[in-house]
Order: sequence, then structure tokens, then C-alpha cells
Amino acid sequence: MRKINLINACLLFVFCFSGHITLTAQESDAIEDEINQIIAQLTLEEKVAMCHAQSKFSSKGVPRLGIPELWMSDGPHGVRAEVNWDDWGYSMWTNDSITAFPALTALASTFSKGLSYEYGKAIGEEARYRNKDVLLGPGVNIYRTPLNGRNFEYMGEDPYLASELVVPYIKGVQENGVAACVKHFVANNQELWRDHINVEVSDRALNEIYFPAFKAAVEEGNVWSVMSAYNQLRGQYCSHNEFLVNEVLKKKWNFDGVLITDWGAAHDSKQAALYGLDIEMGTGTNGLTYSEVNHYENYYMAGPMKELVRKGEVPEEVVDEKVRRILRLMYRTTLDKTRPFGSVNSKEHQMVARRVAAEGIVLLKNEEKLLPLDINKKQKIAIIGENATRMMTKGGGSSELKPKYEISPLEGLKNRLPDHEITYAMGYSSGRAQYGMVLPPVFDQEELKKEALETVKDADVVIFYGGLNKNHEQDCEGGDRLSYQLPFGQEDLINDLAKVNKNIVVVLISGNAVEMQWEKNARAVLQGWYLGSEGGNALADVIVGDVNPSGKLPFTFPKKLEDNSAHHFGKMSYPGDSINQEYKDDILVGYRWHDTKKIKPKYAFGYGLSYTDFLISNVTLNKKTFNRQETIIASCDVKNIGELEGKEVVQFYVEKVKSKVMRAKKELKAFSKVELKKGDTQEVKGEVDVLSLRYYDEEMKDWVLEPGDYLLHVGNSSDNIRKSIKFSIVEQIE
Amino acid sequence: MRKINLINACLLFVFCFSGHITLTAQESDAIEDEINQIIAQLTLEEKVAMCHAQSKFSSKGVPRLGIPELWMSDGPHGVRAEVNWDDWGYSMWTNDSITAFPALTALASTFSKGLSYEYGKAIGEEARYRNKDVLLGPGVNIYRTPLNGRNFEYMGEDPYLASELVVPYIKGVQENGVAACVKHFVANNQELWRDHINVEVSDRALNEIYFPAFKAAVEEGNVWSVMSAYNQLRGQYCSHNEFLVNEVLKKKWNFDGVLITDWGAAHDSKQAALYGLDIEMGTGTNGLTYSEVNHYENYYMAGPMKELVRKGEVPEEVVDEKVRRILRLMYRTTLDKTRPFGSVNSKEHQMVARRVAAEGIVLLKNEEKLLPLDINKKQKIAIIGENATRMMTKGGGSSELKPKYEISPLEGLKNRLPDHEITYAMGYSSGRAQYGMVLPPVFDQEELKKEALETVKDADVVIFYGGLNKNHEQDCEGGDRLSYQLPFGQEDLINDLAKVNKNIVVVLISGNAVEMQWEKNARAVLQGWYLGSEGGNALADVIVGDVNPSGKLPFTFPKKLEDNSAHHFGKMSYPGDSINQEYKDDILVGYRWHDTKKIKPKYAFGYGLSYTDFLISNVTLNKKTFNRQETIIASCDVKNIGELEGKEVVQFYVEKVKSKVMRAKKELKAFSKVELKKGDTQEVKGEVDVLSLRYYDEEMKDWVLEPGDYLLHVGNSSDNIRKSIKFSIVEQIE
Repeated sequence: MRKINLINACLLFVFCFSGHITLTAQESDAIEDEINQIIAQLTLEEKVAMCHAQSKFSSKGVPRLGIPELWMSDGPHGVRAEVNWDDWGYSMWTNDSITAFPALTALASTFSKGLSYEYGKAIGEEARYRNKDVLLGPGVNIYRTPLNGRNFEYMGEDPYLASELVVPYIKGVQENGVAACVKHFVANNQELWRDHINVEVSDRALNEIYFPAFKAAVEEGNVWSVMSAYNQLRGQYCSHNEFLVNEVLKKKWNFDGVLITDWGAAHDSKQAALYGLDIEMGTGTNGLTYSEVNHYENYYMAGPMKELVRKGEVPEEVVDEKVRRILRLMYRTTLDKTRPFGSVNSKEHQMVARRVAAEGIVLLKNEEKLLPLDINKKQKIAIIGENATRMMTKGGGSSELKPKYEISPLEGLKNRLPDHEITYAMGYSSGRAQYGMVLPPVFDQEELKKEALETVKDADVVIFYGGLNKNHEQDCEGGDRLSYQLPFGQEDLINDLAKVNKNIVVVLISGNAVEMQWEKNARAVLQGWYLGSEGGNALADVIVGDVNPSGKLPFTFPKKLEDNSAHHFGKMSYPGDSINQEYKDDILVGYRWHDTKKIKPKYAFGYGLSYTDFLISNVTLNKKTFNRQETIIASCDVKNIGELEGKEVVQFYVEKVKSKVMRAKKELKAFSKVELKKGDTQEVKGEVDVLSLRYYDEEMKDWVLEPGDYLLHVGNSSDNIRKSIKFSIVEQIE
Repeated sequence: MRKINLINACLLFVFCFSGHITLTAQESDAIEDEINQIIAQLTLEEKVAMCHAQSKFSSKGVPRLGIPELWMSDGPHGVRAEVNWDDWGYSMWTNDSITAFPALTALASTFSKGLSYEYGKAIGEEARYRNKDVLLGPGVNIYRTPLNGRNFEYMGEDPYLASELVVPYIKGVQENGVAACVKHFVANNQELWRDHINVEVSDRALNEIYFPAFKAAVEEGNVWSVMSAYNQLRGQYCSHNEFLVNEVLKKKWNFDGVLITDWGAAHDSKQAALYGLDIEMGTGTNGLTYSEVNHYENYYMAGPMKELVRKGEVPEEVVDEKVRRILRLMYRTTLDKTRPFGSVNSKEHQMVARRVAAEGIVLLKNEEKLLPLDINKKQKIAIIGENATRMMTKGGGSSELKPKYEISPLEGLKNRLPDHEITYAMGYSSGRAQYGMVLPPVFDQEELKKEALETVKDADVVIFYGGLNKNHEQDCEGGDRLSYQLPFGQEDLINDLAKVNKNIVVVLISGNAVEMQWEKNARAVLQGWYLGSEGGNALADVIVGDVNPSGKLPFTFPKKLEDNSAHHFGKMSYPGDSINQEYKDDILVGYRWHDTKKIKPKYAFGYGLSYTDFLISNVTLNKKTFNRQETIIASCDVKNIGELEGKEVVQFYVEKVKSKVMRAKKELKAFSKVELKKGDTQEVKGEVDVLSLRYYDEEMKDWVLEPGDYLLHVGNSSDNIRKSIKFSIVEQIE
């Protein structure tokens, strides 16, 4: 009798939640044996065919042996709609509407590992139901400049925060037998010229700033695939960069998964073969036209690589190793018969999207407690701004989604306040979202402004939904922003509105910081990100106070662009001269730069208000002196001293006093989120391994622990430290 | 630790051959419990959504609960290429090239249950690899008239032969966790007016002729799905025919699977709900245009059925029962985690296709042993005829395929005889294959004939590849043939060729019998069917004698159309008056008619020559008198008395002597295929359950065993009986 997988009484649990469990060493060894046995049966043609795309989102298995294809899908924020086999046109299916989750900047703002796991789990379930084996996300490139068009897909400017959040996301996804694919490895920190720009950056900045989230993804998240960046690093494309891939990723970090190119990011067959690329995916057709059936045969890792093997220039074992990794990925995904079936658009997923969205919203300003709205009093609410109704899952590049629904901010508020008088005027207009192209606005801007000024005249409160959008040269793949200002005349509009009505709440919908000269004219400001299917509901949750905001900025809002480290050093530092670029800011990225150089930001990393107030007190350390094996445990009491239940993120930064090397003023080393009822107090701990205080020594090419005095700072944002405690590191004799 | 499905040393076996094993009663009960628990969680909308198409070839699961979609594919002869979501255009994928297996008439001609199992297993593996849950085949409609455009997809005119062959096919498919879908239930025996014609046919003919293969599919094959016919039976569409579906299929035969419409074969919501239809699939959009996103909502089993439930005209339990069957199907297929992964285009599959093709070819005539060609002698071989090069996987309707390759007859012979002088002239030309439309020939027929006559002039042997093709009004779904003659001027051409060269071999490529007045001018004739990817190789195998032909006709070739029973009774019997049709031939279909009415056919059912000769002798029965529980065992010796190794199909027919009711002269009740080396003898047995000798009594609505004398005939074709033995049935007192 065969063994069947009986579904137990609680069906939902089996369908949605039966997780994928780690293999024993013995089981892994058995699979490795099988993989080698399969490889022994394959022809060179079959092996090579597994190493490159067969369609826009799939690569070949071995049909005659029953080894399935590998199916991938864009989707850091939701599983992408089906596209055609050979071009980017949508296939016009109806089963590919999904839950749109908030963009990763919103997830980062939650400072919540639990929510990151829930997010990963939910999106992994959606990918699994859609029969995707590799989910092309999450993105953990470091937020270096607010102009980067793709920052909204990443987890902010701090390597520790990104590392802490990427690991549970990966675990959540991979429990479904779906591989996460952490991207884009590495230094793809701008979209401009991304397909060719050569990045020069120090080993120290790589190791301390740009690598950590990838390293955590590999070493702690056990991620099964990694996507290479488009750009070059030190003169070699990241897709086949001997240092990055062979030396760091595969050797130093022991990555045993598959390196997949970004689409069209391979440039050389021999390098691709020898420098660790495993699967080449494509945007174009490498010379052949789409109409030519076998255009994939022209890919660098297709016919040309096969030729190199035949000529003896590439040993067949090199191809075997790629196939070994691909088969290993398959055993973890499509060949894993124990994996669950996934699910799509469940209430649970929608609630995950809503919770992440609501907890990611950051309250930047709240004069005289204008927020939450007093909804017991009937109010006339004037809603202004294109972003109040604009679908933000459309546009933005490869993260574009086809959600089952997307609640707009206006809709969310109207649903929540059916009995209030809510009026709407667009106020300003941008063009339609079109990849790689800026289209003109559809409406007359002066007319729109006139209408808006009329609308706000006798309103009790004005909520302006503005910011950026998913258009080219806004928050969108394939281009960078051209300016730090609010676009489409919004600054003037806000200033003009304020002349008519002082009670203005501004909700910024964006994945990037913006210049905020206009902020003096807003009595409250919310950073609203791109929040997915439940965005409008989540914003309403916060605006009416159903949810007390607890999001914290995952990146700094500089007052002006020149205050940002990437821009401080001029054109060669950002954006480069179109050929080369040098990260002259080195390790001083984001708040590290602002802190160290004492450049006050508009809003600091880690900043975010609440509708209640918290008091941090009784900060202590477990010891005064530590050696390299030890863990520093900082404790404090957090008390909710305001009127409402709420959540606070306690942040633990460490500063090296008088370092012999250049250092950031302080670095985030731990954080803890705590939920407190009004009047309640809770003890919160931050644990910091002494080894995490090391810096990367360029000469020694290794991490070095500097003995001496340090400060541990405890606060609720990088610029609001409540207490600093000194401790010492004593270097052991080894 | 999770249990993993380790692949053992012999990988091929696990990937391709690990079979699906029957559940215990306890396991089945557990699944039924789970199904009921799922149903309890579903909304009416979710239930109804499972009962109709969501795209051309899929129906919905329950996304929020992780219950997968159901994917179907045309494919009695190979898994169909991917088509678009909402129309019949091909999706232009490159992973959908498959092995084209021979058409089912060829399989039927093998008289081999073993090959039928291998065929089902191989095609099931291809379907599984392509992630299809339901394979829309096999077809077992009875061959009633040689004009039926779709006969090539069926298994001939004899209900016993079709029953014996359909069961192993189904088992082979379903071992892969892929449902077979036996079609088209029932009396879809012509294509003309199939979408509306009303068939009147006696209960006796249904039970004795048209039902048995479906009954065997259900009762012995445990088929998981059945496809309804387009036509009406006794005034009600077969898709929701109370008698056919509720009474016979689901009650009498205990079918526990899913009844799926042919595409667009539902016509009434209430009948569909109440009379047992489970899933409505579609060709059109039932009133809404393709561009309307929710056009499927307009299907009879969609919005309108939901409305009937809401109004109380259809109890919700009726929908629950459909969903129960659909979920049961899912547990057998897509939800079965133990099912193997399948494979495509393996050497094994190609060899199955070749073996079936070679063993299905029927040698009809072989004067002076013209075949096999004496290939030791260098010969000049002239090949004539469009079918020598025509791709026969193109056209024909829904069975059209996109094979990885298709060896044409000319190519197959050239590959086998590289050193012989082989010349080719087309001889005649038809038009391009176009569904529902006859296109004119591309070439000038007179020119082609002239060229052909020139080509054969000094050839040692002429092989003419003619017959029908997959064009509209030839062997093609959606229309019937207009004439019994060979089309495109082939008869004249053969006669003219014979004036120039007497050594003519005619290879008929067709799925139907054709008129054969021209046959006197051919020294050898092969019936070559549609043979799939390996067709040309298989024909070469037989022509040069690598394979000794052993195929037997699964249907009669009448001399002229009027000799066929369906045509004998005039227009109302075939094709009807466009509204109604009466099967006046009743049970006397095929050889039953010819035998009974003593109308000598051109070639008889069961007929087929070999390159060797066999002698059947020592025919005996185990007893002289039998009661209803017993089994008649006929034995005989078969001796290969010729010069070559070969196979023979021994056929056992039974005749009721002096029946009180109308009977066919004789009926096939057993057959056995035996392979014998030159000079060898083997004992062959035919086992006939006494109960299988019953006739269906219209009055009693039951099967009746008539006591008295019978004859058991043993021969190697229906018109070549070597020995007849008398036995008696004694009716027991019950």
C-alpha cells in the first residue's frame, strides 16, 4: 500500500501552513549522491540547457528523465502576472491576480522580524500556489542615495537592519519549497547606467555596508538562490565576477545554491562558465531575433559555453558543478514532494499585508496631536492629491503586480468613515506609468490646483496624498530620480493649500526620501510608502487611530541632496561618468555619514512618532568589560506614559571611542520592538555579540576587534539617544 | 525530521516508472472525510467556480485554501501544445513539443493489451511532465460509418476489442496521477451536426454496442473522468442526460469520477445541475465576448446555476456532490503528493510509439510476396504520393499535435535504405489543413501526375503513399467525409501508374476504410493509419521486413458504402435529417452486419496478413456444456509454418445457433496474440465467461442468458474461421 499524505482535521493548516523542514546531514548526503548519479546520465547538451533560460521566466529540466523545469517569478512584493513565453507582454490569464504586499521599505520600517517572517511565508505560499519554484526577491541593496529609482524594493540604509529582516523573510518563503532569490549581488545601488557602470568601492565598505545582508541571507537564511547585479565591480560584471562569486559568495560564505543573473546581465561565456554563474536569464535575445525559435541557443551560457567545453577551454566539471547546484535547488523546490500546496488571496494573506502596511507607516510630524482624526466629531475632510486614488501596483518595473484588488487611500478612508463628508480633488497630475519613458500629465495643472483650493476652503481637515509614484524617473526600475524635490508641482500646491487651510496632513507615498521645505506648512506628516492591496485600509487604520503608528525610518531624510554622503563627493561618487563610479563615501552611508559629519538630517534613521509617548529608563549593561567571545546585554525599562496603547522600537547603537581607524560615529547593533498598554512598563533587552563590533581591515583582509572603550547608546531613533553607557573590550591573547 | 522521497539507485525507474497504487478502503474513507470537511468550508461562489472553465483548458481550485486548479489537455495521441488562456491560438511556447503516438485506430489494430498499457503509461508520463491533471482521451466511440471524420481517434467497430484495449490504456495513464477522460459518452458516431443532432437508438444497441467500452472504462479501468458527447440522445443533450448520466453512468456503473463536457456541449443550467454534469468546459463564451473578462461567468454551470441555487430551484447539495467528485479527482491527481514526475520525449516513449505503429500496420494484400522488399538487391524505388511527406500531426482538429519530430514515410525509408536509389514524385496534391474549411490544392494535378508517371517508369518497385489526410472532410474533427472514394484523384492516378509499372505497393494513410476498386492494380497494400512521430520509421520497418506485420483490421472495409449498415437504411440512419437520426442498424454494426446479412466485405474485421503463415489446429473446448457461472476455455495450437518469425492474433467468436431473438451471426469474445519463431508451435487459449454471451432484453431492461446451442469459432480474422465447435448453455434454476 502506498503511503498517502493525509490531511488532518484542521485543513487550513495542512494546505497553508505545513512547512518545509531542514534535512538531516544523512538525508542531504543521500540527495547529493542522487544528484551525482543524475549528472552521470546527462549529455553535455542537457547540462548546458539547464544553465540558461528557455523562456522569459523558466529554464529547462531534463524532459526525458522527468526532471522538471524551473519556474521563476518576479515578486519581492507579490507574485508577478504571467507574461508571454518570449516577450514581456502579459499573457492575459485570469488566475494570476494576487495579494500585493507592501514594498520592502515598508517592511523595513516595521523593524519587526516577526512580520518579515509572516510576509515571507505569505508571499511564499502565493508563489507556491502559482507553481513558481524561485521567487525573485527579496532585494537588499543598500539605500545609498534617495535618487535610486529602485530603493522602494530594498530594506533601507542599514546593513544590520536589512540582515535581521532578510533572514526571516527567506525562511518564510522557503518553508513552502519555494526558493527566495536575494538580489542584486552587489553594489547595484542606482538604476542609472546599471547595465554597464563599473563600481569601485573599498573592501571595507563592501564587507561592512554592502555585503552583510547578502551574507546573512546565505549564512543565516540559507537562501537557495542569489541574483547577480547588472553592474560591474572592479572591472568585471557581477554576474561573473571572480572575486564576488567564486571567492566571497561560494567559497567564503559557502553558498551552495544557484547564482542566477539579473535578466540579461551576463556578458561573457568563459567568465560566466569559470566565475560561478549558474543560470543565465535574459531580457533580450543576445543577437538573434525573438522570432527565431532557438534564440536562447545564442545565450552566453548556451551554445557558446558548450563550444568552450568542446574545445577544452572550459572543463566539463565546471558545467557539472552548475548542474549540481541547479539540481540541488530542484530537490529543495520542485522535486520536493513534501512541500505544501500554497494558497493565494486568503484572508490571512490580506491581513499580513494590512498589518505590515499599518506597522510600516511612519508618523514624521504631528503638531498638536492633529492625528488621529477625531472621528467622533463629524468632520468635513478634504482629500487632495493624485496619490489618493492612484494604483501603485502599476508601474515601477519588474515589481509591477496584478493584484486581486488594491484599496486606494481615498477608498480606505471612505470605507472607514462612511458617515463623514469626504470630498476629493486631484490637485496635481502626473502621466501614465510607462517603463523607461516619461509621459506628460493628462490634466491641466492650473485647473487642478484651482479645484483643490476650492475643495479645501471649508474643510475641517485636509489630507494631502502626494509623494512620488511608479513612473519612470520616480520610484521605478531602470532610471533614477532627476531631483530630490517633490515632483509635479506638489511643493507649490501644498504651500498654496496652506494659505487656504492650515489643518493639513501630508501623506507621502514614496519609496524614497524627498526634500521637505514645504513641511512647515503641514501640521502632520505620514510616510506612507507603497502599501499594496491593503494600502488604503492601513492608512485609514493609522489616520483614524485604529492602529497607533510604530514605523521607524529605515533610511535618513537629508534636508538637501548634498547632505547625503553619495552626493557629497560629487559626480564620480554619484552617478559616475557613465563608465566608472567610485563610492567615495566608503563606509559612511546614511546615518553613519550624518552622525559622523554632524550634518543634521530632516528626519533621522530610526525615527518615527507614536500617538502615545514612551519613556526609556534604567539602562544597564550586564558587564563593564568584555572579551571577544562574549555578548553585551543591554537592558532598559520602557514605559508607555501617554494615553494610548502603542508599540516602540528600542534601538541599541554602539560607538567606538577614539578609534585608531575611521569609524562611523555609531552603528545599529540591536533593536527590539515592544507593545505596551497605557501606563505599562516592560523590560527590553538588546544583545550584541562582541565580534559584531569588529571593523574590516583592508590590509589584513580580515575583521579586527579593536580593544578599548566603547559606548552603547540606547534610544528610539538614531538622533534621540536617551542614555549612553561606557564599556570596554579587552583583547584576549589568542 | 521530515520523510523525504529518496530516489534509489536506478533513477530512471523512479522518475519514469514509480507507479500510482490503489488506495485501501480505509485510505479512501479518510480522503472522503477530508473532502467533506473542505466542502463545509466553501462558499457557494467557490463551489460553483469549480464547476466550469476558467480558461480554455483549466478550471478553478480554491486559491485561498490552497486547492489547486485542474489542468486538462487534449491528447488521445499526445499532449496538445499550449494554447492561449482565452482562445485557440497557440501560446508559442517551446516546452510543449512532445512524442506523437499513433492514432488509436493503429493501437486497436495491434490487438495488444500490453501495447495499450505501454501507450497509456507513456502518454500519461508526458501529460504528467507537462503538469496536466486530466488527459482528454482515449476515445472509444464505435466505428459505425467510414465517413465519420473522427474515426481515426477511436478503437474500431467492435465493443469487445475496444473494451479490452481501453482498460490498460487508462491504467497506464492513471498510474501517473493523471486522469484519463474516456470520450465521447455516447453515440457521437459522426461529426456532421454533432453539436445538436438527436440520436434515437435502441436500449439493446446502446448496451451491446455503444456502451461496453465506456462501461469497461468505468468498471474495470476505474477511469477518473468521462467526457460527454456533443449530441443529444432521445431528445436530451448527452452532457445532461438524465438517463445516460444519472441512471446509467453514475448509478448503474457506480462511476465516482467527474463528467466533463465536450467543449461547449452544455445547453441548460438546470439540466446540467440536476442531470449529473460536473464540469462545463467551453469553446465559445456563451454570449459574452472573449474580451469580457468574466465571460466564463455566463456559462450554464456558472452564474446561472448559482442563481438557480439561490432561488431554491437547485438544492445546494447537488453542487456539493459535483464539488465532491471534483475534489476526489484532485486527490487522485494534482493533490496526490506521491505521484511521479513524468517525462517527455524519452527514448522509451519514442520506442513505444514505434512499436505500436509497426505492430498496428495491417498488410492487406501481398501478391507473390512483393513485400518485404528484397533489400539485399539494390533496387530503384519510386515513391509517389503526397502522404509520403505530409505531416499528419497537423490538422485533424483537437488531436493536432506539436511533436518534437515526425518521421515521414519517405524520410523513414531513406534513413533505412541509404544506399538504394529512391526517387520521389508527389503525384497528387490536397490543400493545406484548415479546421472547418476545405482549401484548394496548391499544385497543378495534371503536372503532378505527369511527373509521377515519369518517375515510376524505370523503377523496380513503386510505393504509393496515399489515402486520406487530416483536412476538413477527410479524417478530421468537425465534419464527415463526403465520399467513400479515395480523394484528390488518387484512384485514377493509381490506375494510370499501373499502366506504366506493375510493381505497385499502395500504403493507405488513413483512419477510415476507403473504397478500393483500384486495388486490382496494386500488388501489395498496407493500411498505414496515422502513426505519429515514428510513423516513417515504423513503415520502413514493415516494408523492408525488420518487423513482420501482425496488425488486424479493427473495422470492416466494405466494398461499397451502401454495404455498410449505417448507410443501408438510408438518410435517417445516416446522417439523419439534421435534427434527428435513427440508428436503424441497431446491433448490427460492422462485421455483425456483414456476417449476418452475408454481405462480403472487401476486407473483414480482424483481417491482416503476415510475411509468414500460421496454421491453427487442435481446437478444443474445456467442456461441452456450461452453466452461467462458468468460463469456456477454448484452446488451439498455432504453428508458424512460413519462413519468418512473426505474430498472429487468434480470434474467438461465438455464435448463438437458432436464437429466439435477433442476433449477430457471431461476436468476438476473446483474442490472443502469439509470437512464433519459424517452425514453432504454441498452445493458445481463449477464455469466455458464459455471462458475456447474454443479450440485452429491451422488455426486461436486463441481460438475458439464452440456453441452448452455441458455436465457438476460432480463426485469424472474422472471415477466416479455421474451426467451429459446438457447446451448450444450460440455464440454472435460480
